[in-house]
Amino acid sequence: DDLVDHSDDELWATEPYRDPRLIVKTAKPFNAEIPPEYQIAHFDTPNELFYVRQHMPVPELEAGSHRVRVVVEETGATRELSLHQLQRLPAATLRAALMCAGNRRSEMHHVKPVKGISWAGGAISNAVWSGVYLRDVLLSCGVDPDDTEGKHVILTGADIDATGQKFSTSIPLATALDAGARVLLATHMNGEPLPPDHGRPLRAIVPGAPAVRSVKWLECITVSSEESSSHWHKKDYRAFNPSTTWESAEFERAPPVYSLPVTSAICAPRHGDAVPVRDGHIEASGYAYSGGGARVVRVDVSADGGRSWTEARLQQDAAPHREHYAWTLWTVRLPVPDHAAQAELWVKATDGNFNTQPERFDHIWNIRGILSNAYHRVTVRLHRSR
Amino acid sequence: DDLVDHSDDELWATEPYRDPRLIVKTAKPFNAEIPPEYQIAHFDTPNELFYVRQHMPVPELEAGSHRVRVVVEETGATRELSLHQLQRLPAATLRAALMCAGNRRSEMHHVKPVKGISWAGGAISNAVWSGVYLRDVLLSCGVDPDDTEGKHVILTGADIDATGQKFSTSIPLATALDAGARVLLATHMNGEPLPPDHGRPLRAIVPGAPAVRSVKWLECITVSSEESSSHWHKKDYRAFNPSTTWESAEFERAPPVYSLPVTSAICAPRHGDAVPVRDGHIEASGYAYSGGGARVVRVDVSADGGRSWTEARLQQDAAPHREHYAWTLWTVRLPVPDHAAQAELWVKATDGNFNTQPERFDHIWNIRGILSNAYHRVTVRLHRSR
Ligand SMILES: [Mo]
Ligand SMILES: [Mo]
Repeated sequence: DDLVDHSDDELWATEPYRDPRLIVKTAKPFNAEIPPEYQIAHFDTPNELFYVRQHMPVPELEAGSHRVRVVVEETGATRELSLHQLQRLPAATLRAALMCAGNRRSEMHHVKPVKGISWAGGAISNAVWSGVYLRDVLLSCGVDPDDTEGKHVILTGADIDATGQKFSTSIPLATALDAGARVLLATHMNGEPLPPDHGRPLRAIVPGAPAVRSVKWLECITVSSEESSSHWHKKDYRAFNPSTTWESAEFERAPPVYSLPVTSAICAPRHGDAVPVRDGHIEASGYAYSGGGARVVRVDVSADGGRSWTEARLQQDAAPHREHYAWTLWTVRLPVPDHAAQAELWVKATDGNFNTQPERFDHIWNIRGILSNAYHRVTVRLHRSR
Repeated sequence: DDLVDHSDDELWATEPYRDPRLIVKTAKPFNAEIPPEYQIAHFDTPNELFYVRQHMPVPELEAGSHRVRVVVEETGATRELSLHQLQRLPAATLRAALMCAGNRRSEMHHVKPVKGISWAGGAISNAVWSGVYLRDVLLSCGVDPDDTEGKHVILTGADIDATGQKFSTSIPLATALDAGARVLLATHMNGEPLPPDHGRPLRAIVPGAPAVRSVKWLECITVSSEESSSHWHKKDYRAFNPSTTWESAEFERAPPVYSLPVTSAICAPRHGDAVPVRDGHIEASGYAYSGGGARVVRVDVSADGGRSWTEARLQQDAAPHREHYAWTLWTVRLPVPDHAAQAELWVKATDGNFNTQPERFDHIWNIRGILSNAYHRVTVRLHRSR
């Protein structure tokens, strides 16, 4: 887990104000979910309700004096860019969800304990990000777009752990330079300057990837022949099969997770709710999402253990498959079995590659509890009026 | 189903010679699987063993006199290109598997009958294709790469049905022009001129898509504001949920399948085989594949109903994730339960988007039996020597 000295109150003295509607999972560092009813209330999540995932205390940085350093290891070229200088590049805007790789971990935990914050389905939110493309920044610094093989872009933030190491991870240089991958250096979120919790004044946005790659409080961009050597990069966010233990896991051999699988969740009703039945139907709604630019093409919901499936209505961004980075909201009018006093609702999404979710968590279980995308299931009481 | 007049023997008089090792599913039109032992015997399938999927009789075309017509509907521009003229464009080579969208349909059929050729796992093979990029052809014909929205490329072959309609389907223009999508016009397969069964003398290769998009005996390429209007395009290769019937299916509303989900199969041992157990282990091998350029990153095999999983060794092409179009071959030394007389082997693959396969066919069942990618399961007898 993250190396933070929780005893030193001074570290936490300047934490920003947080909306009391957020569901706090850990206070120091601050990790909090957006409640499900707020996920479906807005297609673009209001900034104050966007889920928060911190590894360390929140750094306080000034937009006016902030500089991001770009280092090209091979040539030794180094540039320091102010936000003002960045903004001379073409303006870029992207609607994208960010999702923690551990979203929905709590459901996987029921199969067998896993290590990590016990997220329910609230570690995903959606926003419109604006700034400039990382591609344009790198090209302006002389990076050769035809020489990407085996190269990486290390992204380092200003947040710092108890050993003095700043938060860092990396992405392939090919991704950073792929126009379709639309990797951003964002200064704004839903038209406002980034809030402190979301990386003020500068944050990478790597859409379709686990949110950990979207480094906040961005200080340094290094083009390197190596991946980031940080423990966040080397010892986390890698996937194993269910038989791999902490003892047998070979982190160096497992590929880093750079793209998220298709997932979905029911946000309303919630577990245990009494739901009104009208003409044999109930209403349900939630979100669906797939990483790597995949567009969700269908969401199916069942109230009878998969014997029948009803296709949900989708609310989506217009971006095409392969460059579709926003989430999808869905609603459905769902038939429920006659006379039943309760029902278990299931949801599964299918994306434009026609991948869909596994039924159960058993065979995707992994020590770190990431990529937890089996069918979401919610049991509700059926309230029939006379 | 395809409209072919099976009574007219003349239609079939010039069918090419076929290797007797192919497993014939239908004779007229000719549809045949590669036997599983030959899938794993070569990383690049020998041409004569490559599975064959025909809709109609095989046209006889001459490479020397063949012309492909390129039509840009918006401008009315039309060009006829000989193979010789095509070959003035930069040479392009691509290792790619082709897989029928109905591969492994026979397993889905067991849940509930589906309509289509009852393919086992032999409707996938792998080859090195060479020719030129469709992108280069279109650019040389003046197609504007910045004006792709809502546009399609209709691909029409020389094969013709009983109503006089030539085989046709389409792909998005954005895909055709995306350098990473690597859509090819191929003249050669594994270094040889295309065999008649695989499109001699010119075939589109749309890697990562259902093989139906890789139109054989290519005669015409039309840039259009409409998708192909053929029944192969409009009334097939679309996906529905398990509750959708032939009566309720809205083909116009369902998105065409342009990319295939992650799948895998055990090629050896086969169902019912007696397998030698050595030191508590057996050997197994097979293939894995994911469409849309996704690279397979892990193959897990179980001999105990998913209680334990063993990671297989992978043989792969070097292409990176997002541009990885070849299949993956795998082998595993698998522990089997003590004292058991038989075992059911399960395989599942995970791709670079960390999507994996559904456990069972029940909830991906669809009327047409396509995208049949649940875990592959093979029951074998365990032969223990003294
Ligand atoms: Mo995360
Ligand atoms: Mo097919």
